[in-house]
Amino acid sequence: MLIKKTYTACPLFNSVFLCLSAGLCAAKLLKASGLNPVVLEARDRVGGRTFTVQNKETKWVDLGGAYIGPTQNRILRLAREYGVKTYKVNEQENLVHYVKGKSYPFKGSFPPTWNPIVLLDFNNLWRTMDEMGKEIPREAPWRAPHAEEWDKMTMQELFEKICWTSTVRRFATLFVNVNVTSEPHEVSALWFLWYVKQCGGTMRIFSTTNGGQERKFMGGSSQISEFMAKELGDRVKLRSPVCRIDQTGDTVVVETVDKQTYMAKYVIIATPPGLNLKMHFNPELPPLRNQLIHRVPMGSVIKCMVYYRENFWRKKGYCGSMVIEEEGAPIGLTLDDTKPDGSVPAIMGLKRICEIYSKVLGSEEALHPVHYEEKNWCEEEYSGGCYTAYFPPGILTQYGKVLREPVGRLYFAGTETATEWSGYMEGAVQAGERAAREVMFAMGRIHQSQIWQMEPQCEVPALPFVTTFWERNLPSVGGFLKLMGVSTVLSLATVAGLVAYKKGLLPRS
Amino acid sequence: MLIKKTYTACPLFNSVFLCLSAGLCAAKLLKASGLNPVVLEARDRVGGRTFTVQNKETKWVDLGGAYIGPTQNRILRLAREYGVKTYKVNEQENLVHYVKGKSYPFKGSFPPTWNPIVLLDFNNLWRTMDEMGKEIPREAPWRAPHAEEWDKMTMQELFEKICWTSTVRRFATLFVNVNVTSEPHEVSALWFLWYVKQCGGTMRIFSTTNGGQERKFMGGSSQISEFMAKELGDRVKLRSPVCRIDQTGDTVVVETVDKQTYMAKYVIIATPPGLNLKMHFNPELPPLRNQLIHRVPMGSVIKCMVYYRENFWRKKGYCGSMVIEEEGAPIGLTLDDTKPDGSVPAIMGLKRICEIYSKVLGSEEALHPVHYEEKNWCEEEYSGGCYTAYFPPGILTQYGKVLREPVGRLYFAGTETATEWSGYMEGAVQAGERAAREVMFAMGRIHQSQIWQMEPQCEVPALPFVTTFWERNLPSVGGFLKLMGVSTVLSLATVAGLVAYKKGLLPRS
Repeated sequence: MLIKKTYTACPLFNSVFLCLSAGLCAAKLLKASGLNPVVLEARDRVGGRTFTVQNKETKWVDLGGAYIGPTQNRILRLAREYGVKTYKVNEQENLVHYVKGKSYPFKGSFPPTWNPIVLLDFNNLWRTMDEMGKEIPREAPWRAPHAEEWDKMTMQELFEKICWTSTVRRFATLFVNVNVTSEPHEVSALWFLWYVKQCGGTMRIFSTTNGGQERKFMGGSSQISEFMAKELGDRVKLRSPVCRIDQTGDTVVVETVDKQTYMAKYVIIATPPGLNLKMHFNPELPPLRNQLIHRVPMGSVIKCMVYYRENFWRKKGYCGSMVIEEEGAPIGLTLDDTKPDGSVPAIMGLKRICEIYSKVLGSEEALHPVHYEEKNWCEEEYSGGCYTAYFPPGILTQYGKVLREPVGRLYFAGTETATEWSGYMEGAVQAGERAAREVMFAMGRIHQSQIWQMEPQCEVPALPFVTTFWERNLPSVGGFLKLMGVSTVLSLATVAGLVAYKKGLLPRS
Repeated sequence: MLIKKTYTACPLFNSVFLCLSAGLCAAKLLKASGLNPVVLEARDRVGGRTFTVQNKETKWVDLGGAYIGPTQNRILRLAREYGVKTYKVNEQENLVHYVKGKSYPFKGSFPPTWNPIVLLDFNNLWRTMDEMGKEIPREAPWRAPHAEEWDKMTMQELFEKICWTSTVRRFATLFVNVNVTSEPHEVSALWFLWYVKQCGGTMRIFSTTNGGQERKFMGGSSQISEFMAKELGDRVKLRSPVCRIDQTGDTVVVETVDKQTYMAKYVIIATPPGLNLKMHFNPELPPLRNQLIHRVPMGSVIKCMVYYRENFWRKKGYCGSMVIEEEGAPIGLTLDDTKPDGSVPAIMGLKRICEIYSKVLGSEEALHPVHYEEKNWCEEEYSGGCYTAYFPPGILTQYGKVLREPVGRLYFAGTETATEWSGYMEGAVQAGERAAREVMFAMGRIHQSQIWQMEPQCEVPALPFVTTFWERNLPSVGGFLKLMGVSTVLSLATVAGLVAYKKGLLPRS
């Protein structure tokens, strides 16, 4: 009934839930270094928050983490190693911006605007967020010069301070929704600004081309974890949720819900921080960590794929990307999910469905999908939600510093502990490998300076985002009003003058 | 190794962590109804967030929940049943308000002020909070007319809107700190306003005399739980943290970390919501509950008792209550904790210590305590913190409604699920008894209308708090400025006029 396994000369890798692969990455690296790791996985599959399903209707579909892009060099390195190819998400045709019941086709990362005031306001929003981000150290956001002040604010409060127009405020809300699957009033401004910064800024995080959504993996993202699991063989134990960790003795004792016991020198916990709570610790965790893990909930998202007989949107000149702003709309952002060879036409959206596609794309066909797949990540006990943990106001400055601080012989991985693309597959790889190297350092096998490693750029090129003179120097709406006097603003002359500058202004298109 | 126990005809009461007694209260009531409950307690003691220690230096000391007062009729009924007496916390002499390095003696619940603007501002603060509270249904705060708007705001934002003076804003912060052991920027305004309301308003929650801190139990508060546990005998299993709950079969199967298995028809989980995470559920919890339990952290508090040779503060005309406003002060509020017969002179404070007492009380003696006791609730794995769970912005309206919604044969108690004095011992009793009656209803033993029961007033009288004409009708500072014109305000005439009204205004003293 009770099986005792002893891994005397080797660390144990307990990843109750892998974020893609933080646990597997750690184990892979340790095995390559001649150690003898074991991976304990709570689910009946590897991959964590990536989840590729194969069936005849879809061929394959990613119901979890799917997108990768330039500067995500670690996950791309792994893919290359296993021969998993990437392809570009379709963005050939126009994107659609749906607002106040109307669809506006556009090109570029952000919907453009003709209203000069809104233009100034948008320009100021992105610029302000990126500039605030520059102040925030990616490895220690709690040490930013204004950390306390910004952490006491929600993003909603920050938007109220910097946005002048309701158009921009509405879009800013969508920007938070889409990037961290939570609401502006739920998240700390410091945390969200850090999050955007460590992904490379507002343009990099939100863009398809040259950004976080540029590519997908041929055959689905779970393959990477599956290849790693294959390499690790029977070191990976599925259906093994850990419920107890005892480090009072010479070795760490780990017990699973199905009453297996493992013993090891070191343990890496590669779950989202909040899921540390699934384990009973002896001795108890230190106060700050005990408090932290109750304070960092996961975002909420249902990922939905709708399949159609035909790729009708492309015929209408749309690429399938929709930015949808409507009170109570179930979906905020979509992307084409058709296979790269044009087969299995589909649209990926985050939350509810169909009727809204028909409105936005102006096509009856959108009401007649041939197949549907969805994944509600909120109901997953061993994810707690998706994509990532968020920090409510006040938490990052008070508890953030223990996020990846070892506790005795316990080390912490999981994409939440990363400093580049935290929240993404890339962050999981960074975190898993860093935690593995922490253990190797503890064992005296590497030098401390080797724990954190840079990753060289791979074959996916990262283009810089260039800002124009005007983007850098235009006033905010507030500044502009001061400059002009409120009444003047509304005069046609001013408006006409600004419209003349529009070409130079059109943000990043 | 694996012990199977079957309680075929009887519900199982699994309270991994009792809040005082929610689990014990439920079990007591069910046993009295002829059922056969079992209580599974994670710790090596009963009492949960109450914790009475006995030793020769202190006789006895409550290091957890300790205070009771008028309108807390359920806990007082239990105390009477077991013959546990109450005594009044000393408030004979002056309280001290310490601000900007000076001590001001005062009487009443709130420190008075001579500045008429501050006076208007204070009056408006308490009135506004109480009036907003009136709109909030105690059993369903998410149904308040302005629920969404208020839930998106932190208390810090609300204070920024309603407080005009820094004096009042600073005191408002202390009011949140002391009542819910968290910060104004961490908590939802809707939730905090609900919390104050369901305790009976700003006066009831904050007062010693006639309020939540009026009394303590002779011999300590844990006695109540201990008496209940004694009554339940070997039905109470200590050191039995539950790590697995399976309700896929005909009976619910519950497993503990020490590999005991229990079977029962129904289960009541009497832990703070966030500690549901310590259990692995089969089937998984529904999405909303799964999300809720990651979103409601516990407050942070260290309760400290300092013991002196002599009751020197009473000799100086102070009762021992201090309201301390100082940047970075470790303590915000203290109360006398001397025994009712005058022995064991002590001061109870929440957090760090000594130097600040000496400053406030102006006495060298405060630097020379004879004994010290403290309890850091943040480090307790099976509490997660104290006194109670708080709701960050956005959570109450989105997830609140599942707080006590049964999941199959699982029912939920714990003081967080109460509708009167939630967060207090009283709330724990209400919640435990209500959950027990939900089970009895499910078994067909009582009618649905019997689940929620009013409690008659006991021997501790609750006096109403009367507001004066002026308290009800004075303008806010904003309203006053509008009325007067800003410049006039500062004229001596106005100030003098207001000072004349002061007697009528002095808030609730």
